[in-house]
Amino acid sequence: MSYQKDIGDNELKEGLKDFLETAPEIYLSGVSVDTVIFGFHNDKLKVLLLRFANTPYFVLPGGYIGKDEDLDVAALRVLQERTGLKNIYLEQFYTSGTRKRSEEKIVKETLQKIAGSIPHSNWFEQRFVSVCYYALVDDTQVNPQPVPFFTEFKWVEIRRVPKLLFDHNSIINKALTRLRSDLNEKPVGFNLMGDTFTMAQLQKLYEAVYQKEFVRTNFQRKILSLNVLERLEKKYNGKAHKAPYLYRFIKSS
Amino acid sequence: MSYQKDIGDNELKEGLKDFLETAPEIYLSGVSVDTVIFGFHNDKLKVLLLRFANTPYFVLPGGYIGKDEDLDVAALRVLQERTGLKNIYLEQFYTSGTRKRSEEKIVKETLQKIAGSIPHSNWFEQRFVSVCYYALVDDTQVNPQPVPFFTEFKWVEIRRVPKLLFDHNSIINKALTRLRSDLNEKPVGFNLMGDTFTMAQLQKLYEAVYQKEFVRTNFQRKILSLNVLERLEKKYNGKAHKAPYLYRFIKSS
Repeated sequence: MSYQKDIGDNELKEGLKDFLETAPEIYLSGVSVDTVIFGFHNDKLKVLLLRFANTPYFVLPGGYIGKDEDLDVAALRVLQERTGLKNIYLEQFYTSGTRKRSEEKIVKETLQKIAGSIPHSNWFEQRFVSVCYYALVDDTQVNPQPVPFFTEFKWVEIRRVPKLLFDHNSIINKALTRLRSDLNEKPVGFNLMGDTFTMAQLQKLYEAVYQKEFVRTNFQRKILSLNVLERLEKKYNGKAHKAPYLYRFIKSS
Repeated sequence: MSYQKDIGDNELKEGLKDFLETAPEIYLSGVSVDTVIFGFHNDKLKVLLLRFANTPYFVLPGGYIGKDEDLDVAALRVLQERTGLKNIYLEQFYTSGTRKRSEEKIVKETLQKIAGSIPHSNWFEQRFVSVCYYALVDDTQVNPQPVPFFTEFKWVEIRRVPKLLFDHNSIINKALTRLRSDLNEKPVGFNLMGDTFTMAQLQKLYEAVYQKEFVRTNFQRKILSLNVLERLEKKYNGKAHKAPYLYRFIKSS
């Protein structure tokens, strides 16, 4: 699912004007959240991107933190506003705070173009330290929610991500590194493997995340040695000798 | 090494006044850095704490981020100002942003007591989102640097950390969890193992970090299976048959 709509420059400016009138009162200055939403379905790993209204430029879904809102709560709210997803395991993995991340010429020009003449538009241009979270979801379960200032929503295969604004490409790379190391240790995969699954299904997830193929027997030995899976009954399909075992994650109490 | 000095209330207020006169111009508002400096020496793991001037309360070494300063650079500068240490591997591990972290009654009272009547003292009382870094160093190599507003510096064994202000106890626990998982994968131990070391020396480090003892043969098998160590010549000590092997970390190129 995705949406794509264009809005008139006037409509965009009115929306921005409303937002900027209250934003400095409502949100923390100088700190934002960005989310890397990995989508997995049909053996492919994708990432969710939004297009800045009336520009050709894509960014990660992000947002601001209420002055009275906890950081983790803000991240969940932003995720829900952008995707409709609730109760998702979101992992904070990195805070990006180089001075130059908001100073790219193209970022300045884009912000100038869409918000330049609006009062308080310098609020967008301040330096933001961005706290980054990632999640791994089944992308067919996501209900895109149109949000102000973003006029397109799409899932892009991880190896086909275009040049994004800010340091968002680098943030995706850091998220992927962390996802790979978390996959064995944290419940990041629980959202999408269902209650039970076969070893072959789990291998597909690992292959998508690592972007490479594994040998079946090696994969099975490695995964079982981690002691995170519980083996259940065989999945009967009429040919008992070929039925694969079902597994589930051992939930830590 | 440690220092402990008391200063008069007037001297403290003058120092705070000078700081607060320029801080809002120099530093980002609302974002700070905190550092968890683990010290290892004589088989013990400690953590570096500072005492708030003229109060009984300890905190982690922390500081602010220059408006034109990268986040990682600020963390290294804060570390150097507090400890004299340069060229240390600092790992960003967590950003703490609950609303209530600065709202503890005792925090408010302490800030009120030391800075209450000074102009702009509300700068201290704003909500700070804190980006947290940790390092692992040889604590005998640290040269404590007296800094304004902190009148004591000490190393405390990890199991004897007192109740700290803000959410600093929770931050230490998160740092320790991360240190344990990083120890096998990142150069956090390089600072203090020297160029070469014996398996027994390395085991002492792991035992201090994990706060438990390992069986020698199991430890050796586990560590060697990680493929991060290179085995060198035996260390001759006259009794060749008992000489232990020396190892070094394989530096990734």
